[in-house]
Amino acid sequence: MSTPLLLEDFLKQKLPSSDRIHLRTSVLPTLLNSITSVAQCLRDSQDIQAAGSQNTSGDHQLNVDLATNDIIHAAIRTCPSIISASSEEDEGENAVQHNSNISPHDSTQEQYSVAFDPLDGSSIIPANWSVGTIIGIWDSSTALNQRASSKQVAAILGVLGPRTTAIVAIRLPSSPDSPLCFEVGLSSSTQDILVIRENVQFKSAEEVKTRYFAPANLRAAAQDAAYKKLIEHFIEKEYTLRYSGGLVPDVYHAFVKGHGVYVSPVTAKSKAKLRVLYEVAPIALIVECAGGRAVDPATGRDILEKEVRDVDDRSGLVCGTREEVDMVVRMLRGQ
Amino acid sequence: MSTPLLLEDFLKQKLPSSDRIHLRTSVLPTLLNSITSVAQCLRDSQDIQAAGSQNTSGDHQLNVDLATNDIIHAAIRTCPSIISASSEEDEGENAVQHNSNISPHDSTQEQYSVAFDPLDGSSIIPANWSVGTIIGIWDSSTALNQRASSKQVAAILGVLGPRTTAIVAIRLPSSPDSPLCFEVGLSSSTQDILVIRENVQFKSAEEVKTRYFAPANLRAAAQDAAYKKLIEHFIEKEYTLRYSGGLVPDVYHAFVKGHGVYVSPVTAKSKAKLRVLYEVAPIALIVECAGGRAVDPATGRDILEKEVRDVDDRSGLVCGTREEVDMVVRMLRGQ
Repeated sequence: MSTPLLLEDFLKQKLPSSDRIHLRTSVLPTLLNSITSVAQCLRDSQDIQAAGSQNTSGDHQLNVDLATNDIIHAAIRTCPSIISASSEEDEGENAVQHNSNISPHDSTQEQYSVAFDPLDGSSIIPANWSVGTIIGIWDSSTALNQRASSKQVAAILGVLGPRTTAIVAIRLPSSPDSPLCFEVGLSSSTQDILVIRENVQFKSAEEVKTRYFAPANLRAAAQDAAYKKLIEHFIEKEYTLRYSGGLVPDVYHAFVKGHGVYVSPVTAKSKAKLRVLYEVAPIALIVECAGGRAVDPATGRDILEKEVRDVDDRSGLVCGTREEVDMVVRMLRGQ
Repeated sequence: MSTPLLLEDFLKQKLPSSDRIHLRTSVLPTLLNSITSVAQCLRDSQDIQAAGSQNTSGDHQLNVDLATNDIIHAAIRTCPSIISASSEEDEGENAVQHNSNISPHDSTQEQYSVAFDPLDGSSIIPANWSVGTIIGIWDSSTALNQRASSKQVAAILGVLGPRTTAIVAIRLPSSPDSPLCFEVGLSSSTQDILVIRENVQFKSAEEVKTRYFAPANLRAAAQDAAYKKLIEHFIEKEYTLRYSGGLVPDVYHAFVKGHGVYVSPVTAKSKAKLRVLYEVAPIALIVECAGGRAVDPATGRDILEKEVRDVDDRSGLVCGTREEVDMVVRMLRGQ
């Protein structure tokens, strides 16, 4: 392996220097560094416990949910071009109150809204399994009522595991057919952001040796014939099972292996559960930039076709390698 | 939560002070500290890559496999009472060459053999999922040809995840009915070993709300009717799936949730895969000390009933809550 590039040098090479200066030099590095801090916070939190509160989705909050939310908000307040922000732990989208030493933003320049889930995977935190941070970056002063396919211009999927790593996707309206999708390693000792994989792409069907599947909410298969049949199909065809129950590591696994399909179905008894703004939309952008597909199984349509109307909009999710996603959606829809 | 005790203070309370002084003050803290160092090594290894070699089991070795193996061996060389050691990355069991500043051991005192897997879960390391370290401590100058049920006196299961944690079990011949099973948090910044849960025990059937299952080698279900039927049973009965493919995190999950069953079957096409000395035996001790069972599905007998004859002895594994293990073994054996 050649020596990995620093993020700064990589982005200078890959993005036109005159364009998106704030995104390149402020928004992305600041948010990635905040994930390093989130990992450090979690590492120092041996006493994981309930905070005694609930977020707006009704989830019980852990002390680390709140601490990591604060870390990312603090980072956002140092970026003049981030105009608004929303998080799974907040109530709605809010204007960013920048730190007093930040110069007022020139509104003719770049303006972003950031939507994030600071710590996804509460149920597996006590067992010390890898969890994650999800961030979507919107090219607008708000993320709501926007064309997701063109206005969500970047996304970050950070894995808080034995190491701290993240996949970053950037798809700019100026060059929609040349997206970037790369993996970085985040070091809390050096604070470096190293590009450890410059081009994250799913393999072609011919290149795939081992096929992976991650069936979320498997209990729904007890009541849903189509989902049950799909699971039987995976078993009969000898797919390899990898399902941690953490959305971020489960999806991330496919990016690293170059193959995989994640299935969070919507059935009569099991409603759409994932938040579009904080979870599904950022993942969908990364999946598309890696050459895959991300579909709402309830409609069969691409996740990014729909605007996000409300911070609490929810959806199912089938994402991963194109061929697998198409097969899964057909089977779930009984076709 | 009350302030966690330091390991040293906890063991002083729980073990008679005159007995097992080396185990308490040297072997256990040294091995636990070595897991802290293993976690640090992994955290600093952004360039996970093949070392170009294979271990004696034929697995391809990663650079981090070798580096973490060296870390634990270096720790062992500082413990005068550890007479021999073996690891999944070594060839067989070897006498420990202690550091020159270590006083020669008085052979009338405690003598231990340590068997370990420094870094279990190679396949999921690139995806940055939690992996683990497994250590068995034998009350003898060798771990081979010993009664496992009484001679393996302690075991450690360390999870290298967002945090570094470990479950420790101790069952001494002097008090076989009063085993200890506790969870520690390992801090690389303070080097403290904190007892974060003093008594790790599976819940009773009545207390269990969510039932978990972890089906290893699910591909074997395509060819094995009994395993396939077992999987269908889990789905129909609405068990929750948690399967990372890492033996340590998969088993650890059950200890943290208080319920769960891990199934690594042996079928006509899928041979026994797990190493008894480095993986299955230490896990079996911890499972028993937590009130559960660990069984070889090929024989239906407790793992610890059999002596380990060779460092490469292999086995299947069904472990977890007693009721679930009994049910799984019955179903796998077609009863």
